[in-house]
Amino acid sequence: MKRNIKIIVEYDGTNYYGWQIQPEVPTIQSELKKAIFNITKEDVAVIGSGRTDTGVHAKNQVAHFHTESSIRAEVFAKAINSQLPDDIVVKRSELVDLDFHAQYQAKAKAYSYTIFTNEYRPALNRNYVYWMRRSLDISLMREAASYLIGTHDFSSFEAAKSPRKSSIRTINKVDIQKENCYITTLLEANGFLYKMVRNIMGTLIEVGYKKYSPTKINEILKAKNRDFAGVTAPSHGLCLEYVLY
Amino acid sequence: MKRNIKIIVEYDGTNYYGWQIQPEVPTIQSELKKAIFNITKEDVAVIGSGRTDTGVHAKNQVAHFHTESSIRAEVFAKAINSQLPDDIVVKRSELVDLDFHAQYQAKAKAYSYTIFTNEYRPALNRNYVYWMRRSLDISLMREAASYLIGTHDFSSFEAAKSPRKSSIRTINKVDIQKENCYITTLLEANGFLYKMVRNIMGTLIEVGYKKYSPTKINEILKAKNRDFAGVTAPSHGLCLEYVLY
Repeated sequence: MKRNIKIIVEYDGTNYYGWQIQPEVPTIQSELKKAIFNITKEDVAVIGSGRTDTGVHAKNQVAHFHTESSIRAEVFAKAINSQLPDDIVVKRSELVDLDFHAQYQAKAKAYSYTIFTNEYRPALNRNYVYWMRRSLDISLMREAASYLIGTHDFSSFEAAKSPRKSSIRTINKVDIQKENCYITTLLEANGFLYKMVRNIMGTLIEVGYKKYSPTKINEILKAKNRDFAGVTAPSHGLCLEYVLY
Repeated sequence: MKRNIKIIVEYDGTNYYGWQIQPEVPTIQSELKKAIFNITKEDVAVIGSGRTDTGVHAKNQVAHFHTESSIRAEVFAKAINSQLPDDIVVKRSELVDLDFHAQYQAKAKAYSYTIFTNEYRPALNRNYVYWMRRSLDISLMREAASYLIGTHDFSSFEAAKSPRKSSIRTINKVDIQKENCYITTLLEANGFLYKMVRNIMGTLIEVGYKKYSPTKINEILKAKNRDFAGVTAPSHGLCLEYVLY
């Protein structure tokens, strides 16, 4: 009997070429597919809520796969983990309706982006933070971020050549917190365009060190042109925090 | 003119055979020595506040070395960092009196030990925490830890065959905090015997899951015999936090 299994996956993206299967290189999706094959001998499609790029991490990526195996849904997590490398872990597995789809039914997603501002580079946590020597003005960044909230055409923050029907997305919230040298930004939206979070972060950083004024965000949004926004922030500060259904 | 330079070093111990130079394997001390040689062409002795074992991390290890070079003391940090791998960083360098000695003059040291208690193993931060499936009773651990505070003969927590004049040490404080799945213990003492922190942690963990009662600590101290204490907790949860002079 075919069953649909939903899994919650945490991974350290440092050693992977992102989520999606590609020939010849290690990816999160291919590791999960191999692990499931080792257990069930089935060649399943592991469908994630979306792709993450090379070096991007996830605390709660959501995926599903169909199986004919008789393994109990809740036991899959442990079984898959026994076949995974130590930088990927299935935190939970559960039986869901056959029509559950991790990508199409996602209602919202949240990413965090962590910046480490200090004179010296970090040795500990270096794969999880973007190091900047410059200090950033958090209150300017917060003001800039507030203009992103709501429904907008985010073309200016979309990587070139992204095949999307629409560039309109709704950002539900942006929260910027500072603790010691760490500045962590959480962005929740009903969906993200390709490299949208990293392009937004690159722009917020430029506001933070006063290259742009916060209201420049409104001009950038209006321009609908990638050339108007800031640079793309590096991938290793980015982490998929959660997906809502 | 000979000068004495004090450095504060952060490192991720994951890929090293500990602090001390050993033939044929990468160590923190050998990386620092090589980096300084690349800059000054001097074969210096880099004296640390103490050794750390394989896999142990440091936020603020302190070391010193003598140099005839004319490089400004404060500039050494940046210069050395340019020659170091990305998992070691000199956070600060400064000129100190010629008689400053990082090991002999250390008045106190503090280590942290981080436990991650959860059903699933961690993928993120996996090199910085000790994962346990069992949950731990923090209040029992705190009570047990309170008996360690003060001046005691810590022979029962000393690794076998440690050549020390005395096994008497003074623990200034033990602080155990829990945040979500992370339990972090900070121990400050005037000095630590070989593997003392990890042996204490192994014992506190056994108190935490109720194998031992908290007062058992007093019996263990009295026994002055390594066989009485708990197992040695794994190295990768351990981090040298600071050294006081």
